[in-house]
Amino acid sequence: MALFGLIEYKDASPEVRAVYDDIMATRKTDWINNYWKAIAHDPVLLKRTWQDIKQIMAPGGALDPVTKEMIYVAVSVTNQCPYCIASHTAGARKAGMTDAQFKELMSIVGMANETNKLVSGYQVEIDEKFKT
Amino acid sequence: MALFGLIEYKDASPEVRAVYDDIMATRKTDWINNYWKAIAHDPVLLKRTWQDIKQIMAPGGALDPVTKEMIYVAVSVTNQCPYCIASHTAGARKAGMTDAQFKELMSIVGMANETNKLVSGYQVEIDEKFKT
Amino acid sequence: MALFGLIEYKDASPEVRAVYDDIMATRKTDWINNYWKAIAHDPVLLKRTWQDIKQIMAPGGALDPVTKEMIYVAVSVTNQCPYCIASHTAGARKAGMTDAQFKELMSIVGMANETNKLVSGYQVEIDEKFKT
Amino acid sequence: MALFGLIEYKDASPEVRAVYDDIMATRKTDWINNYWKAIAHDPVLLKRTWQDIKQIMAPGGALDPVTKEMIYVAVSVTNQCPYCIASHTAGARKAGMTDAQFKELMSIVGMANETNKLVSGYQVEIDEKFKT
Amino acid sequence: MALFGLIEYKDASPEVRAVYDDIMATRKTDWINNYWKAIAHDPVLLKRTWQDIKQIMAPGGALDPVTKEMIYVAVSVTNQCPYCIASHTAGARKAGMTDAQFKELMSIVGMANETNKLVSGYQVEIDEKFKT
Amino acid sequence: MALFGLIEYKDASPEVRAVYDDIMATRKTDWINNYWKAIAHDPVLLKRTWQDIKQIMAPGGALDPVTKEMIYVAVSVTNQCPYCIASHTAGARKAGMTDAQFKELMSIVGMANETNKLVSGYQVEIDEKFKT
Repeated sequence: MALFGLIEYKDASPEVRAVYDDIMATRKTDWINNYWKAIAHDPVLLKRTWQDIKQIMAPGGALDPVTKEMIYVAVSVTNQCPYCIASHTAGARKAGMTDAQFKELMSIVGMANETNKLVSGYQVEIDEKFKT
Repeated sequence: MALFGLIEYKDASPEVRAVYDDIMATRKTDWINNYWKAIAHDPVLLKRTWQDIKQIMAPGGALDPVTKEMIYVAVSVTNQCPYCIASHTAGARKAGMTDAQFKELMSIVGMANETNKLVSGYQVEIDEKFKT
Repeated sequence: MALFGLIEYKDASPEVRAVYDDIMATRKTDWINNYWKAIAHDPVLLKRTWQDIKQIMAPGGALDPVTKEMIYVAVSVTNQCPYCIASHTAGARKAGMTDAQFKELMSIVGMANETNKLVSGYQVEIDEKFKT
Repeated sequence: MALFGLIEYKDASPEVRAVYDDIMATRKTDWINNYWKAIAHDPVLLKRTWQDIKQIMAPGGALDPVTKEMIYVAVSVTNQCPYCIASHTAGARKAGMTDAQFKELMSIVGMANETNKLVSGYQVEIDEKFKT
Repeated sequence: MALFGLIEYKDASPEVRAVYDDIMATRKTDWINNYWKAIAHDPVLLKRTWQDIKQIMAPGGALDPVTKEMIYVAVSVTNQCPYCIASHTAGARKAGMTDAQFKELMSIVGMANETNKLVSGYQVEIDEKFKT
Repeated sequence: MALFGLIEYKDASPEVRAVYDDIMATRKTDWINNYWKAIAHDPVLLKRTWQDIKQIMAPGGALDPVTKEMIYVAVSVTNQCPYCIASHTAGARKAGMTDAQFKELMSIVGMANETNKLVSGYQVEIDEKFKT
């Protein structure tokens, strides 16, 4: 159950509890998923990555919450991280991703991984038009 | 300039020209980027991957064209494929991606790559709630 | 339990036993972990990779044993290899890695994975000063 | 020269200049490398990743600065990010990494990438002893 | 059991059944592995990837079936995809791969992953002779 | 030109020359590619990786030389290592790989990279039949 085990709310220090509280308040939920409980053994990491994610995933930006979560899924699938795929697919669904959207997402992720490698294998050079 | 060189329209077989024509018509453009010219040495691959991409990236689905292109960029950045990043960033912009959207996209891709690895390093197990 | 199963010491050929003996003597331990038992089905691979690792991880070099094991963990986490993360985290701890060191290691690995992708996404060119 | 170009100090907003100033003061140097100038187009990202890196790479922790930079190199090599390899190899050398240390680092990174894949290919299961 | 569960033959739509039938006929087998049952929730993806794989893996080309399956294994091991490694190792064996061939395959895959990273770490430039 | 520069034959130590001589004799060629000249700054690494590669790529095994080189290309393309792709594609051609074989190789590598990710994204579990 994670390298150092999971720190539950009742066993958490005030510092860790403050982050847990903010996660639950921000996400409008009453539970904390294992990722946070596992890294809570390093309160500095816990606080830093939560603040970063909170800032990045905050609503009201240029991308809507569903799109943001789907991008997170796209990266997690490309990296083949089972935990991340499971948690962010759940997160995307909670944010409103439909099954039809998930399916299109997967088709694109699969295709992009294919063409990324074909480009490398055929040693394709960048078009002048694409140079910034 | 690519392993077998690039096949220009004027030198292309009718089979390859038909794909080039369809690419230009579908994308409402009058040029073909290097990727297609490089893989045109294998007309079967050219035709298959074009048809696949045409189907996957077609408008009218559950995801809008900008979102689709941004997902393609997210994968390409995670795979660190310079050609793919350059071409799909250009494609996303052509589809309407704003600079603000690109910046949020990059922040999410960066963060997801960080937490994907932290999950692995801390050996986090999937929450029962996330199990399908 | 591994593709070809695990070859236990009692069932091993003299050739394989000689490697097992050397592993146990070098590591001052009385057991062999699954990796070696799994690849022992190819005694040439077993011998070659053991000799390579023995040479590379030998004490007395420019890097101390804890640093060497932590570098092994950094690669394994980046590759997201669960077995390798578990075995080399255990190895690093046995070599003296503290929890505080592990936590700093993870923070760096996470951050490096983030900035590696941001560099690619923003298409950053190498500074002249960095060119060798 | 990067997707949006590079923002030089003289052209930077006060917000960006403050980060540049802090980078130069912290690193005891009078120049800024391209990475920061490229992401400065997103001042929020610039500030957040700089603060994160400053915190993570700060001296006085459980790992010394050379070890920290070598871990950054290990990740960058595994991800095959040319910019990151060049910049962090330079950074590690500035922090005191010797050529002998670099060579041992590379040997470990190479070997770890080999055994990570052998573990996967032979489908090796985690030893009970390694389970946390 | 997969994100949307597995679609068994008896529960499949005629469209999905037609693909299942073609898979079984092409592979001369009477069962369908989980991959197809999992993606059958997206019949368009099911049909497209099956047709692509059928075309690519078809006998009678420039590469024999065993070589094709071993290349599939080489990629899957490099990507560290447990399902893909298990299924394509089984597929390669069914196509005639011997244990001796598998072992040589693994040695090459391991070595290639090592030297790929050494090349990056030592920042080796492409020889003029290798430029196409 | 590589981190430490390239060590040419005329400037090489007897130890390094011995490896260069063996490379040229084994490969029946009169030149040394940059990879070896770059890592020759670490004669131990040079000797070890050359001996490993010589053993692994030696003719007379279960796999023929062309197949071996194509597997090396498959890994290099999946890792997107430009140097490795260029050098091993050249090596495969020298060993007899035809253009038709290269094209089939690329199609498989592309497809495998696509399905590897689809498997992860759809969270497909390993079939009992595939369990070893």
